[in-house]
Amino acid sequence: MNFKAYIRDIPDFPKPGIVFKDITPLLLDPAALDAAVAALAAWARPLNVDLVVAAEARGFILGGALARELGVGFVPARKPGKLPGETVSAEYILEYGVDALEMHADALEGGARVLLHDDLLATGGTARALVDLVQGRGAVVAGFGFLVELAFLNGRSTLDGIDVQTLIAYSGE
Amino acid sequence: MNFKAYIRDIPDFPKPGIVFKDITPLLLDPAALDAAVAALAAWARPLNVDLVVAAEARGFILGGALARELGVGFVPARKPGKLPGETVSAEYILEYGVDALEMHADALEGGARVLLHDDLLATGGTARALVDLVQGRGAVVAGFGFLVELAFLNGRSTLDGIDVQTLIAYSGE
Repeated sequence: MNFKAYIRDIPDFPKPGIVFKDITPLLLDPAALDAAVAALAAWARPLNVDLVVAAEARGFILGGALARELGVGFVPARKPGKLPGETVSAEYILEYGVDALEMHADALEGGARVLLHDDLLATGGTARALVDLVQGRGAVVAGFGFLVELAFLNGRSTLDGIDVQTLIAYSGE
Repeated sequence: MNFKAYIRDIPDFPKPGIVFKDITPLLLDPAALDAAVAALAAWARPLNVDLVVAAEARGFILGGALARELGVGFVPARKPGKLPGETVSAEYILEYGVDALEMHADALEGGARVLLHDDLLATGGTARALVDLVQGRGAVVAGFGFLVELAFLNGRSTLDGIDVQTLIAYSGE
């Protein structure tokens, strides 16, 4: 399937000069939604993962479906203060400041094989924070599957040694 | 399946005196995750919906999987400023102030039959905002499926005339 046909360019979002890659037309199309989950699952199945960890909020949309398709559990990585139990945290750098992602401390057992998912790989800040969170719990990042990759931002360089899959890649803005 | 066995009580979250119903153990269990999506889909299938609309952020986790299981598209309802493109908005009252949910203005066609989903029905504020958003676009709320209902907060009273389904209900704190 030509997934890229379902991505919409939104100029000047979230600020002037940025062209936002909007995935909502893909989500709205039943065949594209189904095929995107199936394609990520087909890539991930040989990795024999124990669970899927995905990032708030857009990563949850395909992440839950991906876990179900693979027959494994789902663990949400959330913005600070959102998870109710004991959490572990990893920070990442934004253009102006620092943000963080949290996971429940008891969500990963040592040695678990984890499939990471987010909708978009850009500069790799949140992606690297997810890897740090999982590896910091003694678990293994078996792979990282994205829907969209902005390859010109070179986020893959932050994921050295990680098996990365993206369904849609943009080589330039 | 006894879904309630997978819900964890977290006392004093998000503030003292509140017992938070934590759904993450259910998400982490492959059989419970699969069965929850299957159960909501089995209830929703006769409603013949055209798409699933779910609320940021926890509603996305089962919402995407539910849309895929039903063979329909998925539309995210998000916090203000998160969606690129033209949006419509509905406000709801919080204990201290007002918040809002937004949807893409072009996401619903008039007459579309919509399945709404969120993880939790409490006082019904966000639920009612979702109904208002969908009906405000001339679409039909065919049903509203929740994972958990805090029945003692009587949120159903805000959803009069809506076909509501919940997999787990608590009659008291």
